Amino acid sequence: MPNPISGFSKLSKSEKIDWIVSTYFSNKEDAKSLVTQYWNTDKKLQKLHDEFIENTITNYYLPLGVAPNFLINNRLYTIPMAIEESSVVAAASKAAKFWLDRGGFKTEVIATEKIGQVHFMYEGNYKELETFFNVVKPKLISEAAHLTKNMERRGGGIRAIALINKTKDLENYYQLHATFETLDAMGANFINSCLEQFAQTFEREAKNTLENNIDIVMSILSNYVPNCLVRAEVSCPISELKSKDIKHPEVFAQKFKQAINIAEIEPYRAVTHNKGIMNGIDAVVLATGNDFRAVEAGVHAYASRNDSYASLTHCTIEDDIFKFWIEIPLALGTVGGLTNLHPLVKFCLELLENPSARELMQIVAVAGLAQNFAAVKSLTTTGIQEGHMKMHLMNILNQFEATAEEKLKLVDHFKTNSVTHSAVVAAIKHLRS
Amino acid sequence: MPNPISGFSKLSKSEKIDWIVSTYFSNKEDAKSLVTQYWNTDKKLQKLHDEFIENTITNYYLPLGVAPNFLINNRLYTIPMAIEESSVVAAASKAAKFWLDRGGFKTEVIATEKIGQVHFMYEGNYKELETFFNVVKPKLISEAAHLTKNMERRGGGIRAIALINKTKDLENYYQLHATFETLDAMGANFINSCLEQFAQTFEREAKNTLENNIDIVMSILSNYVPNCLVRAEVSCPISELKSKDIKHPEVFAQKFKQAINIAEIEPYRAVTHNKGIMNGIDAVVLATGNDFRAVEAGVHAYASRNDSYASLTHCTIEDDIFKFWIEIPLALGTVGGLTNLHPLVKFCLELLENPSARELMQIVAVAGLAQNFAAVKSLTTTGIQEGHMKMHLMNILNQFEATAEEKLKLVDHFKTNSVTHSAVVAAIKHLRS
Repeated sequence: MPNPISGFSKLSKSEKIDWIVSTYFSNKEDAKSLVTQYWNTDKKLQKLHDEFIENTITNYYLPLGVAPNFLINNRLYTIPMAIEESSVVAAASKAAKFWLDRGGFKTEVIATEKIGQVHFMYEGNYKELETFFNVVKPKLISEAAHLTKNMERRGGGIRAIALINKTKDLENYYQLHATFETLDAMGANFINSCLEQFAQTFEREAKNTLENNIDIVMSILSNYVPNCLVRAEVSCPISELKSKDIKHPEVFAQKFKQAINIAEIEPYRAVTHNKGIMNGIDAVVLATGNDFRAVEAGVHAYASRNDSYASLTHCTIEDDIFKFWIEIPLALGTVGGLTNLHPLVKFCLELLENPSARELMQIVAVAGLAQNFAAVKSLTTTGIQEGHMKMHLMNILNQFEATAEEKLKLVDHFKTNSVTHSAVVAAIKHLRS
Repeated sequence: MPNPISGFSKLSKSEKIDWIVSTYFSNKEDAKSLVTQYWNTDKKLQKLHDEFIENTITNYYLPLGVAPNFLINNRLYTIPMAIEESSVVAAASKAAKFWLDRGGFKTEVIATEKIGQVHFMYEGNYKELETFFNVVKPKLISEAAHLTKNMERRGGGIRAIALINKTKDLENYYQLHATFETLDAMGANFINSCLEQFAQTFEREAKNTLENNIDIVMSILSNYVPNCLVRAEVSCPISELKSKDIKHPEVFAQKFKQAINIAEIEPYRAVTHNKGIMNGIDAVVLATGNDFRAVEAGVHAYASRNDSYASLTHCTIEDDIFKFWIEIPLALGTVGGLTNLHPLVKFCLELLENPSARELMQIVAVAGLAQNFAAVKSLTTTGIQEGHMKMHLMNILNQFEATAEEKLKLVDHFKTNSVTHSAVVAAIKHLRS
C-alpha cells in the first residue's frame, strides 16, 4: 500500500504528477506522457486553467459541440453544448430543425428570486425574538450596505428578510430567510457574503437585547429556487406534426402525450425522463460556465415538490393543437465566476450573442425541452436504442481502432442493419477475416 | 438575424467552425484561432475526442485535479476529480487527511440492483392479462438470451420481471418492471436492449392470445435505483475530533450535528447540503467516465423519497462517539461506455487501481461524504466564504491579469485579510497605483 503524503498541495504540478505515477502506475513514462499530452501548448493559457481549482494535473476533455437552428422567440440561435454522451447534440439539432418549421420555441421568465438563510438556535420566548427581529431588521440591511452597494446601483439587492419559526420541525430552530435579486450574476458569493454579515449583526445585537442568546449554526444561500423560474413551450396543429418520421400525426401526438402522462405519475419513469431533460440543460450550463450541481439540485427538488417525484414537462392536446412545455427553476449567471475567466465560456457566450442571465435561462430551458421532445419522440416511435446505438457506433469502432476505410464500410453497413455492441464486433471481425 | 442552415452535421469540423464564426462573431479570426488553440496537437487523439459526440468543434477543458490520502477500508487512495469549481478538491484533500488520522472511511455496498420498464396500455380484463403474462414470461427471457448470454456467463443478467398494474394512477396503464444485475457495466445499453426485446415478444404474443391488444408506449431503463445502494461512514470518539481548526470538540460535534439535523428537516437547506455532496460525487463520476446526469437524477429522487426532500447524510452522537454517514444510490460502470475510450478516464481508473463497479461505488460515496464533512465543518465554524474566497482569490487575480509578482504579494496580503471581490479589486488598484 502507498504511504500517506504530507504537503502534497505545495508540490509543483510536475512533482505532483511524478508522485502519482510513481505511486500508482506500472508504466510510469506512459502515464506521465499521457497527462502532459493533454496540456495546452500555450503555457499562459494552461496556467490559467490550472489555477481554476487545486492540485490540477491536466485538462479533462469534454467534447464541445453545437446545435444550430434553434428559433427562440423569433430569434435564431446556435447552442453550444459540452457533454460526453453521444446522440445528445444530434437530438438537440433535430428537435431544433423540427420546430424551426413550426413556429419555434416560445419562452418566458416567470420570476428571478434567489434565496439565502441564516440558520440559528434560540431557547427563549418567540414573541421576544419576533419583536427583536423587527427592530434589528433595518440594521441587518444597513450594515450590509458595503456589500450591496454595487448590486443596488444596477437594480438588484436584498428584496426581503423574514424571521421563520421552525421549532415545530426541530427544537429551538429558527431562520432568517432572505430573498435577493442578483441580475446577471448567479449570486452565490454575493448572497453568502450578505448572509454572513446578517448573522454577525444579528448575533451581536441579540447579545445586547435578548435575555437568551441566539446561536448561529450557519449562513448560506439555497440552491432551491422555485421562484427563479422559466417556461419554454412549443405548439402546433396536430396535422402539422406530419414529417418524414411521423407518418400519422394523430397517433404520434396521442402516444407522445401518453408518455408524458406516465412520467407525470410514475417516479421510476419520471427520474429518467427528467434525466434526459438535464442532458440538454447541463450541456449548456457547462458550456456557459455555470454550476451544473446547483442547477441539478434545484431542478430535481422542484420535480419532487408535490406528492411524489414527477415530470418537469407537460403536454396537452386541445382543439387539435399539440402543446408541449417545461417549467423549471434555473439560477444562472452570465457575469462573475468562470464566465469572465474561461476563454471557451466567453466564446460560448459570444456565440449566444452575450445573453443576459434572463435570456440564458430561456435558452437553457429550450435546450431541456428540445432534448425531451427528441427523446420521447424516439422512445414512442423507433425505440431509444436505434438512434442511440447509431450515434454510439463510432465509439465502438474507435474502441477496436477501426481504420478510416473500415469505418466507411461499417457505417454504411449499419445504415440498414441494427446496431448492437455484439453486432458491431461481429461485423469488424467479419471485415478483418 | 442569421439564416437557418441545412446539412450542418455533414460539414467538416473546419467548415462548421467557419460557419459559426462568420455568422456570430465580430472578430472572426480571433474566434477561430481560440477554438483551434484548444485542439490537441496529436491529430489521432483529437479525432477520437471529436467522435465522442456530434458537431464537435473543440475540447471543453474541465480541470482534472487529485485528492490524495483517502483511507477507505484500510486502503489508501488518491481520488481524481474533474470539476471547474474552486475549493472542492482542496476540501476533499483536507477531509481525507483529517479522517486518515482517525481510522479513515468505512464503506459497504448494500445492493446493486438495476431497473428497467416496458410501459404499455391495455384496455382489457386484468385477470386475463395477468394469466397471459405468467405464460409468456419464460419466453420474454428466452428470446432475450442472445442479449444476455455474455452478461450471464459473468454472473449477471435478468433477475426478475413483474407485471405492475398502474391503472389507479393512469387509465389502462401497466408495466413490465424488470430488475437486472449488470456487474461492472453501468448497463444502460444492455438493459434497454433487453427491454426492447421484451416489448417485441410481449406485443407479438399478446396479438396471438389476448382479446384486446396491448399498446407499447416505451421501453427504457430507470435512473431511479434505490436498490443500487452504497454506504460510507466516518466515526471517532468526540475528544479525538480535536485538531488545529477544532479547539472545542464537544461544541464542534454538537453544532455539526445541528447542521445535519437542519438539513434533515428543511428542504431549502437540504437541496444545498446535497448539492455540496454532489460536488464531490460528480467530480469523480466525470473523471471515471460515468454519466453524472444519471447519478444526479437518481440521487436527488432518492433524497425526496420520504415526505419531503431531505439530507443524504446523517449524524449521531452516542456514548461520546461522533458518527457521520451517507447512504446513496449509485449506478456506475468501470467497463463499457467512455471507460474504454477516453484516455484520461483510463488513466483515472488506473489511478484508482482499476476498481470494480462495486469498489467505485464506495470510492464515489466517500468523495461525497468527505465533501459534505468539509462543507459543514466550514459552515459551522469559520463560515463558507472565508475558505471559498481564499481559493477563488487566484481566479479574481487572473481576471485582472495580475503578474506573477503581483500574485505573490496579494496572496500574502490576503493571508491576514478577508477576501471579498471588492477587497481584491481595491488591493490590485492600490498595488498598481
